[in-house]
Amino acid sequence: MAYELFYWPGIQGRGEFVRLALEAAGADYVDVSRQDDGAAMMRLMKSGRTPSFAPPFLRLGDRTVGQVAAILAWIGPQLGLAPNGDSDRAWLNQIQLTLADLVAETHDTHHPVDLMAYYDDQKPEAARRAQGFRDHRINKFLNWAEQVLARNPAGPHWLVGDRLTYADLSLFQVVEGLRYAFPTATARVTGDTPHVAALRDRVAALPRIQGYLNSSRRIPFNEDGIFRRYPELDG
Amino acid sequence: MAYELFYWPGIQGRGEFVRLALEAAGADYVDVSRQDDGAAMMRLMKSGRTPSFAPPFLRLGDRTVGQVAAILAWIGPQLGLAPNGDSDRAWLNQIQLTLADLVAETHDTHHPVDLMAYYDDQKPEAARRAQGFRDHRINKFLNWAEQVLARNPAGPHWLVGDRLTYADLSLFQVVEGLRYAFPTATARVTGDTPHVAALRDRVAALPRIQGYLNSSRRIPFNEDGIFRRYPELDG
Repeated sequence: MAYELFYWPGIQGRGEFVRLALEAAGADYVDVSRQDDGAAMMRLMKSGRTPSFAPPFLRLGDRTVGQVAAILAWIGPQLGLAPNGDSDRAWLNQIQLTLADLVAETHDTHHPVDLMAYYDDQKPEAARRAQGFRDHRINKFLNWAEQVLARNPAGPHWLVGDRLTYADLSLFQVVEGLRYAFPTATARVTGDTPHVAALRDRVAALPRIQGYLNSSRRIPFNEDGIFRRYPELDG
Repeated sequence: MAYELFYWPGIQGRGEFVRLALEAAGADYVDVSRQDDGAAMMRLMKSGRTPSFAPPFLRLGDRTVGQVAAILAWIGPQLGLAPNGDSDRAWLNQIQLTLADLVAETHDTHHPVDLMAYYDDQKPEAARRAQGFRDHRINKFLNWAEQVLARNPAGPHWLVGDRLTYADLSLFQVVEGLRYAFPTATARVTGDTPHVAALRDRVAALPRIQGYLNSSRRIPFNEDGIFRRYPELDG
């Protein structure tokens, strides 16, 4: 039985965190909206017993789960991308949610005051929000991830235990995204977070991830997604 | 063995979602920072094997877990506030994360462009952000919750299944908070979301919750928390 992923067809966005898990595990899945331009997604989002507030959501058989961290906590064990034990899974979930906070703050840099208006309609506000993000938040989040790696009793190769989990894939994606959107500001930080930089490279070198990144299934970063390159917001 | 909750001592904030679960279950817990003004919290936050990015976090024995939704997913089964089965728990987690998004958007109404500055330093931007929140988001979130209740196969009394879960407690808290911070805007919505309004009342009438709300353990809403009453942002 194949997983069916429902997400906006033209962007990596939050769907990418789910895609990376499915790809890393070699799971059988369909990226539904890329075949029908989102038609089934919009129907499904408002129907069914477990309606999602927003994409992405993932269907397996008769179950549909939304919210990235909930999807990953659900499929992580199925895909071999989560540790055993409730406490270690709680720790993995905590890491994922902290990365989700960073993703949300990244989004707010280009949409600080009006979620429904264009970036062009809120550029002065975005400039102010992005400054605080560059000066205080990228640094704080990536240093926290560095500490998580440094303190892992199994060593700094992976965030939790001695094996790849879905949070490693998400940290890879966040670093990629920050390097795309804020290349100058991010470069100031990653020199001081060597474990994070090494993890990014380790994930990129996983054969299935390497294959995915080189395929047409990987949508390029663009200025409709969460990580947007607006040079005036970097620096 | 008692749970130890670590959170800022003077506000409900995100800690309140954890407090409500502990209180509803009659769990043995210590609200540590209210006894030492946050000293142990600040020490712990930066130490240990599973460092938290921010409060709240909860300790039980030698395990510490942060991030509200991760804490609740971890202790929900221990406290009898979660259903059985991975799929139903994923659905519960999805609901909790959607409520967390609403909480984050509420926070952004008074801090849209600078997380580290005061509200007074970003009032015009807050006015714009709050307008979109009032006009589009409160309505969208509470109507989604109404649908979740209406479509519950076990009936509209609780969000998941036929028993109280931690998400019901969180929805109660969100409605309370919105009524405090945006009384006018929220009243426009809750008349059209009768299941949500009834759930709020049902939770408030639970004997342990009633006892908690009437105790000094319940910190009143105030303008240092997430739900702040700034009349100029309501309307």
